[in-house]
Amino acid sequence: MFQSFDTTSSPEHGSSRLADLRAQMVAEGINGFLIPRADAHQGEYVAPRDERLLWLTGFTGSAGFCCALETDAGVFIDGRYRTQVKTQVDLDHFSPVPWPETSLSDWLKEQLPDGGVIGFDPWLMPQGQLEAHEKALADTGITLKPTENLVDRIWADQPAPPMTLAFAYPIEYAGKSSVDKRQDCANDISGKGEDAAVITLPDSLCWLLNVRGNDVSKTPLMHGFAVLHADAKVQLFVEPEKTAALDPDPSITQAAPAEFLAALAALTGKVRCDKISVPVAVIHALQSGSAEITYGDEPCVLPKARKNSVEIAGTRAAHITDATAMCELLCWLEAQPSGSTTEIDVVTQLEQRRRATNALQDISFDTIAGAGSNGAIMHYRVTHETSRTLENGDLLVLDSGGQYLNGTTDITRTIGIGDVENEEREAFTRVLQGMIAISKMRWPKGLAGRDIEAVGRVPLWRAGQDFDHGIGHGVGHFLGVHEGPQRLSRISKVPLEPGMILSNEPGYYREGAFGIRIENLIVVQPAGTLASEDTHREMYDFETLTYVPISRDLIRTDVLSVDEISWMNSYHAACFEKLDGLLSEAAQDWLQRATQPL
Amino acid sequence: MFQSFDTTSSPEHGSSRLADLRAQMVAEGINGFLIPRADAHQGEYVAPRDERLLWLTGFTGSAGFCCALETDAGVFIDGRYRTQVKTQVDLDHFSPVPWPETSLSDWLKEQLPDGGVIGFDPWLMPQGQLEAHEKALADTGITLKPTENLVDRIWADQPAPPMTLAFAYPIEYAGKSSVDKRQDCANDISGKGEDAAVITLPDSLCWLLNVRGNDVSKTPLMHGFAVLHADAKVQLFVEPEKTAALDPDPSITQAAPAEFLAALAALTGKVRCDKISVPVAVIHALQSGSAEITYGDEPCVLPKARKNSVEIAGTRAAHITDATAMCELLCWLEAQPSGSTTEIDVVTQLEQRRRATNALQDISFDTIAGAGSNGAIMHYRVTHETSRTLENGDLLVLDSGGQYLNGTTDITRTIGIGDVENEEREAFTRVLQGMIAISKMRWPKGLAGRDIEAVGRVPLWRAGQDFDHGIGHGVGHFLGVHEGPQRLSRISKVPLEPGMILSNEPGYYREGAFGIRIENLIVVQPAGTLASEDTHREMYDFETLTYVPISRDLIRTDVLSVDEISWMNSYHAACFEKLDGLLSEAAQDWLQRATQPL
Repeated sequence: MFQSFDTTSSPEHGSSRLADLRAQMVAEGINGFLIPRADAHQGEYVAPRDERLLWLTGFTGSAGFCCALETDAGVFIDGRYRTQVKTQVDLDHFSPVPWPETSLSDWLKEQLPDGGVIGFDPWLMPQGQLEAHEKALADTGITLKPTENLVDRIWADQPAPPMTLAFAYPIEYAGKSSVDKRQDCANDISGKGEDAAVITLPDSLCWLLNVRGNDVSKTPLMHGFAVLHADAKVQLFVEPEKTAALDPDPSITQAAPAEFLAALAALTGKVRCDKISVPVAVIHALQSGSAEITYGDEPCVLPKARKNSVEIAGTRAAHITDATAMCELLCWLEAQPSGSTTEIDVVTQLEQRRRATNALQDISFDTIAGAGSNGAIMHYRVTHETSRTLENGDLLVLDSGGQYLNGTTDITRTIGIGDVENEEREAFTRVLQGMIAISKMRWPKGLAGRDIEAVGRVPLWRAGQDFDHGIGHGVGHFLGVHEGPQRLSRISKVPLEPGMILSNEPGYYREGAFGIRIENLIVVQPAGTLASEDTHREMYDFETLTYVPISRDLIRTDVLSVDEISWMNSYHAACFEKLDGLLSEAAQDWLQRATQPL
Repeated sequence: MFQSFDTTSSPEHGSSRLADLRAQMVAEGINGFLIPRADAHQGEYVAPRDERLLWLTGFTGSAGFCCALETDAGVFIDGRYRTQVKTQVDLDHFSPVPWPETSLSDWLKEQLPDGGVIGFDPWLMPQGQLEAHEKALADTGITLKPTENLVDRIWADQPAPPMTLAFAYPIEYAGKSSVDKRQDCANDISGKGEDAAVITLPDSLCWLLNVRGNDVSKTPLMHGFAVLHADAKVQLFVEPEKTAALDPDPSITQAAPAEFLAALAALTGKVRCDKISVPVAVIHALQSGSAEITYGDEPCVLPKARKNSVEIAGTRAAHITDATAMCELLCWLEAQPSGSTTEIDVVTQLEQRRRATNALQDISFDTIAGAGSNGAIMHYRVTHETSRTLENGDLLVLDSGGQYLNGTTDITRTIGIGDVENEEREAFTRVLQGMIAISKMRWPKGLAGRDIEAVGRVPLWRAGQDFDHGIGHGVGHFLGVHEGPQRLSRISKVPLEPGMILSNEPGYYREGAFGIRIENLIVVQPAGTLASEDTHREMYDFETLTYVPISRDLIRTDVLSVDEISWMNSYHAACFEKLDGLLSEAAQDWLQRATQPL
């Protein structure tokens, strides 16, 4: 179960595999082929058989794609992976392309001035993405053509699709029966005059059916497809072996995924598809039948995002469980002499302590443990090659989380090793001020992440500093640690609604020097009434879910306002109160010290 | 020159004028006619001949429109005018329609279920507005048809178009020659592969030609139209009598406005039009010729918004001049016993003091002086009927500005009369904290008003309070006191750039009780470098332009942070320093007291 510290890339196969792929391109009569790092479910974590990008190129990043042409092959990677890609792919055969600065269409126009045909697997591309590519390629003579997956043809030992046993997710955790969820979503469908909706997102499917599985690591998903009808009946497309442990349900008819396209072709009436997630293959199957496609939001996404009171209570409890592991780790770490501990030690010790809770189902993502300059790499994953020893003066960014049956956690703490310079402490304090400002927010109903996100950046901005990621992402309930549609980001237009769980994680990164990030999870709730309140305004605020002490020794108390000090002291008092008695003796002592008032 | 306190509405003519209009509708073969409160230049202030909405309906508001049908006539008015409209129009013949809650298309669909033809004057509707209406009316059978202006046909004593003498605006004030401005805008046009751009906004025209006029009150505009060509030559359409005092310019060919449409029809090549401002009549004229229309931003709007250093220096000086008048007024007001002074007295005394500067060209808008519950009416204009006497405990919202040759001002102060309740002082302090937060903002280049506006609302939000207007509008340079495209508003996507002048005016309004608003003008500038600054980030901040003391007796100093107190004391010290020696003896004493540290 321990996270892997190996460098999994093997660039040496790239050349021969690319040659095989090109032979298939010739046979297919196409000039290029797209290999995304995606599965049919547009998931963040994919099964081994869907690691086509890694298999072909050697690139291990969690986002990107390759476009193989007759003579060149572009590997499109974002800013996080500019350095990594160069060490992982054979640069004699693959050309890294900075993306999204250079779009696929820009690159193709350059490479294929006389036009050409680019093949793609219609299962791996959502309809909206295809339309965007086609719009950008209009008037170029370059066209996109759905084909079989040419990588699958040449990947002799490609793993089989995941075949794990799904398990029922009891209502004690889910808070609402699957029947009720289906009825609510069906009402949404019929209310819009539609007859059915296609569901291809496995977290939507698992939420709707109150089911979980183990088809990918880090997220408890059962892969599958479904059609939800306006009468609340479900056609489910999952291999029967996978659902053997589930009780049969008269409202659900089940067939193998291989039957999905034929079933789509047999649908009639108006069928809703979400362009963001529904694969082109699904659209083509519907178009081959007599259904009318209506484009709209996937019906589970918003109700799933608005957690009910049972899910929120479970998430609170999961955070306490997770906090005990974090406190044990922080207590252990404090006791290690400078120069004796590596990043890998920290990851391993933390995962041991999470497992020791006996509640951990999986970690919710690979732990980020970056010391010194590694802390400035926002999505750092430590390997045997990169693991640094924690030295006096270092800051350690420790970003991790767990999957528990009652909820999903995600927490970042930045820890100072020995004597930390004032410059780092000042920046840490600004990041903390931003995190506090978001924690204390109260705002009128109707606003989106983009309307309030700036408030968490003001302290850094005043010092001429900033960071290049959003303040927060949505978080699922024993599902994806990254979940939409809610975000605390300058680009998020989705109104924040009660029950939405978000991360609150401002940071600061100085390349080659140090990194800082402080992250709590928070949940939107109706704000309590105040005497001064305008009676006609409905206001929301955040409840904090994460209770783990924040490094007091990194805080420049003298620059905090009275309100900020008061928030910190209340927060630490709550940490003590919630964790008191749940820790080992040593960690209890540590907790006592770590939660003293400023 | 004093602003009028009369109620100018005369609803008694509505019935007969509507009957005359309907006879014209029959003659024209249409089922309805639109009467906007707009001229061909989409200006905030219109000439008397363009007050068609007022003439027909009696409604004096600065926004809205009437749609006359065969039996009903809707007067569409926004939230500011819901009460006012009922006292100004003959409710037996006109039906107020809450707008934009009810759109024109919604109302028409209700009124004309079988379809119909609605006439409109194509000079008074921008192309973008027509397209929006037509989109909303698609599939209804209702169509819009350009016609002559039917109100002009029946308005026997309609005033002539304004015919004031335009005057050159010297480079000492403008900071850049008209030739240079024309060349820059022409480069923008040719850079986009276009041959010309149509200019119908008079503030763009005045800025481009370094000319001002007196065609409307409150804003020093010369009305006219122009075509700017890619070779920087200008075709100007203004009556020759109006430009008699200007030097001839070989790059400008001039004709009467009556020649404008024929000249448009004669254009060739690509001609840029801005849908937001260019009237349908212009589009039709271009379509009748051989030019190709390209839609894009009017070329003067952004360069005009980015004030140059001379314009900024002039604006600074105008604010000092204006501040002397404000301080004299505030000194005078402080000396008046409670119960002795009316809102009209305040307006009159303030305008006298602005005139006494010998620099005032005009007030920049009708002064808002609202005491007690009148202060809660955001766009209040005092009349003889509404003028309240200032009583002990009242708050007075005083929002006013002047047009000076070197700049345009806009300032709001809220003044406490006698002993003000704690509730009002607490709300005042929150508004002030918001204003200070915006004043102190520093942010990374590239952000728009909507990305930072929330920062000025946080103190009110924390108390469950808010206000229903943006934090700030753009301001012109000896031009419109409201000027786009920059705004400090949740809906403004225009990146803030150095030289853009904005108002910073958070407020708080409790209907039927009191109002609060504090407003300074601010200008965007590159921020000075800080030791802590990320070297790769370009940051902007605001310079404050307004220096008039803020009521110390309304501030709850105990809830301000150390930073906020420090900002207030620095601000008041700067007020003293800048105004010291420029005031009467009494006002100098007042200034001394008003700027004491908190």
